[in-house]
Amino acid sequence: MLLAVLQAEAAVLEPEENLRRIAASAAAAAEAGAELLLTPELFPVGYAPARVRAELDPQLLPELAARLAGIARDHRIALVYSLPAVGPDGRWRITATLVDSGGRTVLEYAKVHLFGSEERAAFVPAEEPPAVAEWNGVRTALLVCYDVEFPEAVRAAADRGAELLLVPTALADGFESVPQVLVRARALESQLVIGYANHSGTEEGEHFLGGSVVVGPEGELLAQAGPADELLFASVDPHAAAAARGRVPYLRERRPELYRRWEQQPRG
Amino acid sequence: MLLAVLQAEAAVLEPEENLRRIAASAAAAAEAGAELLLTPELFPVGYAPARVRAELDPQLLPELAARLAGIARDHRIALVYSLPAVGPDGRWRITATLVDSGGRTVLEYAKVHLFGSEERAAFVPAEEPPAVAEWNGVRTALLVCYDVEFPEAVRAAADRGAELLLVPTALADGFESVPQVLVRARALESQLVIGYANHSGTEEGEHFLGGSVVVGPEGELLAQAGPADELLFASVDPHAAAAARGRVPYLRERRPELYRRWEQQPRG
Repeated sequence: MLLAVLQAEAAVLEPEENLRRIAASAAAAAEAGAELLLTPELFPVGYAPARVRAELDPQLLPELAARLAGIARDHRIALVYSLPAVGPDGRWRITATLVDSGGRTVLEYAKVHLFGSEERAAFVPAEEPPAVAEWNGVRTALLVCYDVEFPEAVRAAADRGAELLLVPTALADGFESVPQVLVRARALESQLVIGYANHSGTEEGEHFLGGSVVVGPEGELLAQAGPADELLFASVDPHAAAAARGRVPYLRERRPELYRRWEQQPRG
Repeated sequence: MLLAVLQAEAAVLEPEENLRRIAASAAAAAEAGAELLLTPELFPVGYAPARVRAELDPQLLPELAARLAGIARDHRIALVYSLPAVGPDGRWRITATLVDSGGRTVLEYAKVHLFGSEERAAFVPAEEPPAVAEWNGVRTALLVCYDVEFPEAVRAAADRGAELLLVPTALADGFESVPQVLVRARALESQLVIGYANHSGTEEGEHFLGGSVVVGPEGELLAQAGPADELLFASVDPHAAAAARGRVPYLRERRPELYRRWEQQPRG
């Protein structure tokens, strides 16, 4: 199974330009035989929490989502995109959505771990665990950015059966250890494939690392991007997670009942 | 603060030879100015679970422990050693002990995650979380080998305030990703210094990786050993963990109440 990862600089509050970029990447990825295109956090609107919150008309969001589903359908390729969402409570969250190659929504997820004061001023953190759904025969889940740095979030996905985890991100320059150490460790310790799609370039004064990766369930780098714009491809074995789980059975040999008891003990 | 890590091949069921090696390493480490010597899992008896369980006279264990404390005292250096221990229930566990430079016991820990069928046939897994105690002004904890591959075990130590985690191990050849990916991730995600001391060479037919490491709280390798015998040194900043916790506050921004709720939800 071939996965494509779009690493690029988004234009802040220029969704037309960003959707053109996603559409062109979807066309190129489909042409190359990829079954899915993973795109970075908030890419359609740009990663600029304060400005997005202040200036984006939330009534545009359903139309953007519909057009992104249309891109998937037009190019017959599954797509993971990330948009703000306004809940019934009127509060804004950062979400990720997986639509299949027919444009049907397979998974939705809202970010649980917000990063930094600007993000927390603009959005509220969600509280639901990552759902898992079967996509092309592979049990798949979504997280967003900072979430994946917490082993507990990836455990929650793996515990629900996820074998493929797709993560839009917006990771600043200087944090190489996130894709190179933490994301590899998450894949290895929870025995699943992880795709991690970052911005490159500069948006609203923030310099992004690039460095998007696709990692296999032994922690091995299946593909990694440099610092610049790139359409990254990785060939992924859909049975790799199950095979890894048979070798070193981390998930089976966890002791969650002990961990819970330890958490409840008084501290010395 | 200078830490020393002994990476070596133990002689199976030859404690005299292994204690001589520890004593010589303690002398060399103290001479170099190190405040602590970390040694591998079960090093005084050799890593050979089935033979140790079948052939070692458990009445020798208190004497070995006393002599190891004597090595610390003689060379005025703290020592982490790992021995089997027989509990009041008559069952055998794999333990680690930190004695200070006066030979006084500071910490004791028994391995919670046993690895593989031979270990599980010889020993029972413990159930207590890693204790934390202050040693030389640094809040310190112990784990053993496979334990550190589980993020939950390191979280339990960090959650109790550990800033330095010392891990005797016996890691087979071919598992480079454990020290190079998992141990680095543990240090980074739980923001503490980790020392990880492995065997080298061959014991009872098992080939060991070597590759011992000392890792700082940004996941950075402070020192790493090659495949052969080595007395490894690392200069450790005792304030590094606190400084890292101020930068990216992983420990403060965890959401343990959510993780517990997620674990209790029915699975889809």
